[in-house]
Amino acid sequence: MKILNLDHISGNPLLPEVQKAMIEAIKMDYGNPSSQHKAGDKTSEALESARGSVARLINCAAPREVVFTSGGTESVNHALKGLALANRDRGRHIVTSNIEHNAVIRSLRRLKMMGYQLTSIPVDKYGRVNPDHVSKAIRDETILVSIMHGNNEIGTIQPIEEIARITREKKVLFHVDAVDSVGVLPIDVQKLGVDALSFASNPFYGPTGVGGLYIRRGINIWPLLDGGIQENNRRAGAENLIGIIGMGVAAGLAMRDMDSRLAHARSLRENLLQALPNYIDEYYINGHPEYSLPNLVSVSIKYIEGESVVLMLDDENIAVSTRSACASGSLRASHVLLSIGHEFADAQGTLVITFGVDNMEEDIVRLLTVLKGTVKTLRDLSPLYPKRAQA
Amino acid sequence: MKILNLDHISGNPLLPEVQKAMIEAIKMDYGNPSSQHKAGDKTSEALESARGSVARLINCAAPREVVFTSGGTESVNHALKGLALANRDRGRHIVTSNIEHNAVIRSLRRLKMMGYQLTSIPVDKYGRVNPDHVSKAIRDETILVSIMHGNNEIGTIQPIEEIARITREKKVLFHVDAVDSVGVLPIDVQKLGVDALSFASNPFYGPTGVGGLYIRRGINIWPLLDGGIQENNRRAGAENLIGIIGMGVAAGLAMRDMDSRLAHARSLRENLLQALPNYIDEYYINGHPEYSLPNLVSVSIKYIEGESVVLMLDDENIAVSTRSACASGSLRASHVLLSIGHEFADAQGTLVITFGVDNMEEDIVRLLTVLKGTVKTLRDLSPLYPKRAQA
Repeated sequence: MKILNLDHISGNPLLPEVQKAMIEAIKMDYGNPSSQHKAGDKTSEALESARGSVARLINCAAPREVVFTSGGTESVNHALKGLALANRDRGRHIVTSNIEHNAVIRSLRRLKMMGYQLTSIPVDKYGRVNPDHVSKAIRDETILVSIMHGNNEIGTIQPIEEIARITREKKVLFHVDAVDSVGVLPIDVQKLGVDALSFASNPFYGPTGVGGLYIRRGINIWPLLDGGIQENNRRAGAENLIGIIGMGVAAGLAMRDMDSRLAHARSLRENLLQALPNYIDEYYINGHPEYSLPNLVSVSIKYIEGESVVLMLDDENIAVSTRSACASGSLRASHVLLSIGHEFADAQGTLVITFGVDNMEEDIVRLLTVLKGTVKTLRDLSPLYPKRAQA
Repeated sequence: MKILNLDHISGNPLLPEVQKAMIEAIKMDYGNPSSQHKAGDKTSEALESARGSVARLINCAAPREVVFTSGGTESVNHALKGLALANRDRGRHIVTSNIEHNAVIRSLRRLKMMGYQLTSIPVDKYGRVNPDHVSKAIRDETILVSIMHGNNEIGTIQPIEEIARITREKKVLFHVDAVDSVGVLPIDVQKLGVDALSFASNPFYGPTGVGGLYIRRGINIWPLLDGGIQENNRRAGAENLIGIIGMGVAAGLAMRDMDSRLAHARSLRENLLQALPNYIDEYYINGHPEYSLPNLVSVSIKYIEGESVVLMLDDENIAVSTRSACASGSLRASHVLLSIGHEFADAQGTLVITFGVDNMEEDIVRLLTVLKGTVKTLRDLSPLYPKRAQA
């Protein structure tokens, strides 16, 4: 039976056009240096064409504001470590939020080990940062604020423009982790007014292991990779040209199809939210009702463990995700769910359902039908479930 | 006319088997998370199969000693910055050589900006480091030595085993940049006795933008990319799976064909060296006559500029390289050639010719025939050339 993918945030399929472009790139064999010698310079042409396509997707002022990286994680590490180190003489204090992705959390933890100070801002029950809190957290030694765009667990979108107004006024750099937003909903770096923004190719159906970092012109940043003069001296090393070509094509398609993909995702999301009460009870939806990723539903189901649901759905060839995943063997509740006020037990019973271009209306019915049985089975086994069938 | 590639060090073609594996990987669409849910876990299988293949190529004690990276540059940055930062409480002094690759030079320069001290060791006229000099440079605060394996400009191979005996005795970490050696000649990390070793996929006909870092078990190192738990917690971020699969196949072929490729390259190199005096005069061969990369010839031709030769050969569809490349517009002689005692003018007239599996004996004749005319033309234009034809 065909696997029903409702876990697009863990990995998107490559679109046929992206596959085709990458296969052509492999066959054209850019690796051959002949292209580096001939006037045409096909390698550089392909690279700059992809850069232009990506720059248009996020509305850069100039294509060279895009640095290609090996993915969202490198982009985040580059931005945070590169900005913090390049501006270390101005101060060593960084402001962030309580619900960032691990790439941000751990990059900042690393900077803390190197003598930087962190202030992490709480969020409200919808997962939103209050811009006033950012303003209050900024002090004389603050050099950098890093707040994510769309949250990868609950979907909440932060008030980036408002925060950017504050950082500009206070002359503090502002980095945004937009890995799960770019290519999914319209992102305009100039309108947002940010200094650096991280993104990756896979969320818009490009290959994994490729991403980009937007760095506004004139911003002082250290490379993460020192060496050759590639990427305008901002990121050394021979480029993953095949991956970058795939990302460029995916970016072009994301722009072209943005409206229809958004409408499609929103319709699936609405359908799921409306149908859910007909299949299960005692659950709640996480994240902000309005400011949310269009393709994500986070649902906490009481008296069960998300991990068990994922495994049981997997047996039925349905892929969803849980963000209470056991990390290295120990059960650990999501920091995002705890931050929005969940109890540990409820956080454990959370499913993250993410839609993609390949999903259809009937997928919702199939998911809910299987989910209903799964929830019943698990609750009947749970000592916590008040209505448990007595043996 | 078909381009004659004699500049393999700038970029190797993908072998047909590597192309095939990468195209299959694209079509199989590992990006789809279904594979992350099903017991088989094809993604992880493909990744670990490639890791095993690469680990065998350099004879690791265990495959998990290999961390996949986005190329040689990332590997070098990861090794140097990761080892220096993780061991900063033991000391902040690093020993290196005068003829390292830019990735090493600039990573170390970056560490210097962060408070580390460097000692750079000179080389002899063949480009060899004297292990005694390494021994004398190590002091109480020394934590790390970084010396390259095969030099990318003159081909000289360093006495890595002897240096490793010294670093082990003095309890100092030893990193080796082996980007232009791994897959080209036999490299055995256990026999060499090093702690970390950087390599890349393209020198053995895998894709660009993929590489690896060998880190001996038990070595304390910081990740360069912080975030998720990929690569045994040593390198966060979704893997460039298509590239890694290509690298794995290329590593298997490099092991299988090592002897025949070595014999082929050595034979071309010998042919070129023997025929050269029949075509041009007043030149010398750089590097060590015995300890040298088998696929590289560096020749300094007096009274001409390498840059001009490269352009004129390019017009004849022959690709070679010069290491006196003008960097950002200003003519700058190679630090490697200056380190082995070249005058600036001679360093400028240097060509680097690198062979690959696609080269044949007749390529040497074609190169030399064109080179002869090119050298004559350029010398006749040169005010420095004593025998210049008087107008």
